[in-house]
Amino acid sequence: MLTMKRVKRGNVASPLAFTASGLWCGIKRSHKKRDLSLVFSETPCVAAASFTTNDVKAWPVLYSEKAIRNKKHRIIIGTSGNANCFNGEEGKNSVDSITDVLSELLDVDNGEILIAQTGVIGREFPIARVISGLPKLVSFLSRKGGNQAAKGILTTDKRTKEIAVSTMIDGKKITVGGMAKGSGMVHPNMATLLAFLTTDANISKKLLSKALKEGVERSFNCITIDNDLSTNDTAFILANGAADNKKITSQKSDAYKAFSQAVNTVLIYLAKEIVKDGEGVTKICEIDVRGAANNTEAYRASRMIGDSMLFKTMILGADPNWGRIIGALGASKVKAKWDKLDVSFDGIKILSDSKEESRNRKKLRQVMKKKEFRLEIDLKAGKGRAVYWTSDLTKRYIDINAHYTT
Amino acid sequence: MLTMKRVKRGNVASPLAFTASGLWCGIKRSHKKRDLSLVFSETPCVAAASFTTNDVKAWPVLYSEKAIRNKKHRIIIGTSGNANCFNGEEGKNSVDSITDVLSELLDVDNGEILIAQTGVIGREFPIARVISGLPKLVSFLSRKGGNQAAKGILTTDKRTKEIAVSTMIDGKKITVGGMAKGSGMVHPNMATLLAFLTTDANISKKLLSKALKEGVERSFNCITIDNDLSTNDTAFILANGAADNKKITSQKSDAYKAFSQAVNTVLIYLAKEIVKDGEGVTKICEIDVRGAANNTEAYRASRMIGDSMLFKTMILGADPNWGRIIGALGASKVKAKWDKLDVSFDGIKILSDSKEESRNRKKLRQVMKKKEFRLEIDLKAGKGRAVYWTSDLTKRYIDINAHYTT
Repeated sequence: MLTMKRVKRGNVASPLAFTASGLWCGIKRSHKKRDLSLVFSETPCVAAASFTTNDVKAWPVLYSEKAIRNKKHRIIIGTSGNANCFNGEEGKNSVDSITDVLSELLDVDNGEILIAQTGVIGREFPIARVISGLPKLVSFLSRKGGNQAAKGILTTDKRTKEIAVSTMIDGKKITVGGMAKGSGMVHPNMATLLAFLTTDANISKKLLSKALKEGVERSFNCITIDNDLSTNDTAFILANGAADNKKITSQKSDAYKAFSQAVNTVLIYLAKEIVKDGEGVTKICEIDVRGAANNTEAYRASRMIGDSMLFKTMILGADPNWGRIIGALGASKVKAKWDKLDVSFDGIKILSDSKEESRNRKKLRQVMKKKEFRLEIDLKAGKGRAVYWTSDLTKRYIDINAHYTT
Repeated sequence: MLTMKRVKRGNVASPLAFTASGLWCGIKRSHKKRDLSLVFSETPCVAAASFTTNDVKAWPVLYSEKAIRNKKHRIIIGTSGNANCFNGEEGKNSVDSITDVLSELLDVDNGEILIAQTGVIGREFPIARVISGLPKLVSFLSRKGGNQAAKGILTTDKRTKEIAVSTMIDGKKITVGGMAKGSGMVHPNMATLLAFLTTDANISKKLLSKALKEGVERSFNCITIDNDLSTNDTAFILANGAADNKKITSQKSDAYKAFSQAVNTVLIYLAKEIVKDGEGVTKICEIDVRGAANNTEAYRASRMIGDSMLFKTMILGADPNWGRIIGALGASKVKAKWDKLDVSFDGIKILSDSKEESRNRKKLRQVMKKKEFRLEIDLKAGKGRAVYWTSDLTKRYIDINAHYTT
């Protein structure tokens, strides 16, 4: 724990033997943006993935769901500006063309390539532009290309989301890097978000999958901006073992604990950055529910509050209208001692034993004006706990989404 | 069916032997508003009710859940401006005081009184003002008081919602009247809404309950404004038998069918009026999903679309970004022939067999500029069907809700 450090300007190319690149090929109109993104490992990796649960899945998701079953991977390719979803058989062919060209350019098997795409659904995919951009994308691959790659997957995001952390495992420094895009359609069960993670740790595919799965549950499945579930959500992690630690094969080992902690740190950082940079978002609130009958109930309660439009507008207005919190808790149908609830913002009590601390109203308003604060709830019904992140709901969100395709 | 007519300026006092009144007693600040509302039957009624499923229930809900078990009722009292919820034991005492005073003034048993209240949660209830307003409220009872009563339950609603319809049953004219309030926190499972219905039909309590329950499922449980579930939602119906029809006791009778059709008409009218007058709403959309595996799946699909903030902002922008519809359908996890979907707005095709009719884009924009239009979806997977009503999501909604308590 003490050994974990954030890498300065860290990103997906921070772990050993990874390179990355990003550029504009013309999926997006503006040449000032990037719309292609490549992550490459110089040596074979094990990989894990988490995909959208939406029954309508984009072509890259269908491709990658199959590809992830292979034992070895080398590449993650991302595109933005067109979801390549619900656009007929030609969308599928586009994915095949991209992987064909990349496999030739980088001398890897098609099955070693993972792909994720994001953007508008139901549009013809401009495959010719992408194909003509790929040679340059490959030639740009470099240890310094992480930031360009992070740009290549953005849609309405205002800024990149990138991080790397390092930790010591068996005397070796291992690094986990990551980048993500979010912005609209962000919600549990993978939301619309892409996240690409890399690590130089030496770990079994099985444990890599476990670490990613558990991490996603505590990060991307605990954030919301607008309650929608996308067709393209994807998280990948590649592990190439270049750090040369003894292979992590036991989930009870200290090595696995240290590794999964590093993965969680990266995922939670990216998740919070996604909420902060959500469409129209000006503030974020961490909803920390304790004292639930179990963790599942705590999650349900925290999510019911975080998803409530009345709660989200209340955050915007910096108005401690706690009845909305109680209404959402009641709607979540969790066990609670309804006459014993403790509720506070950043430690300032709103309710003690379900009675209002009305003298705190002014202080509460001050807390709620902060860009980031925490709602703490104790249900007094058990030991379950969950943390969920939500944003305010603003007029800017409406502006962005009333006219997105046009 | 052919005999059903809308009563001109109809309301809760339209059925025979009902009177109503409304006035301002001081729960709300402005004396230009009404905050008390009374509905009275000159003869004993059978009654039925539907309540919020929220685990936090306001005091009037707890009182009325008990009272509804009685055989006879005479009165519905409504108050607005304070939810009388989560405000300690004194809130309970307030309900008891109100029913005590009314029972004295109108010479009925406490158990014959039903009560519903709406407003801000967690505030001390101004019982003294209400008690001092009750004698006048009773003295104002009149056959013409329906409109005043409809005003007395409003909160942020911009206008009253009232209607009455009449139909012939066994040669007798029976009338069903109703009024409602909605505006914020409107969502399935009873939303924040109050609805008071009256009828002079002669019907058993059992069938009255059945008609209300089934009607609520097809009306108030099929609308959404902001996905929140309130602590106070209540629908009541009183039936006093003054129309003198042969008592309706069989659910298979034509009489029951005619009666339940009249109740449905009133409920669906009120439900749509609630959506139209929702906080910040400028347009409503009827989502009609056919071809689902069954009705439950059709409901789930229609609701997933109607609740989507991306769909609601798309309505506002009059932008046929149909990918959002497909995304929501996929998220609802219903059976569908994904390559055979038909989707249209007011009969103008967006998708035929899942292919975009792009030449229709301009026409679709025109339809989406209307104040009321219908989204039609055929999933081609069965015979299930459901209709759901949603609104656009606007900046005005945010203005209203960011600063509601202050």
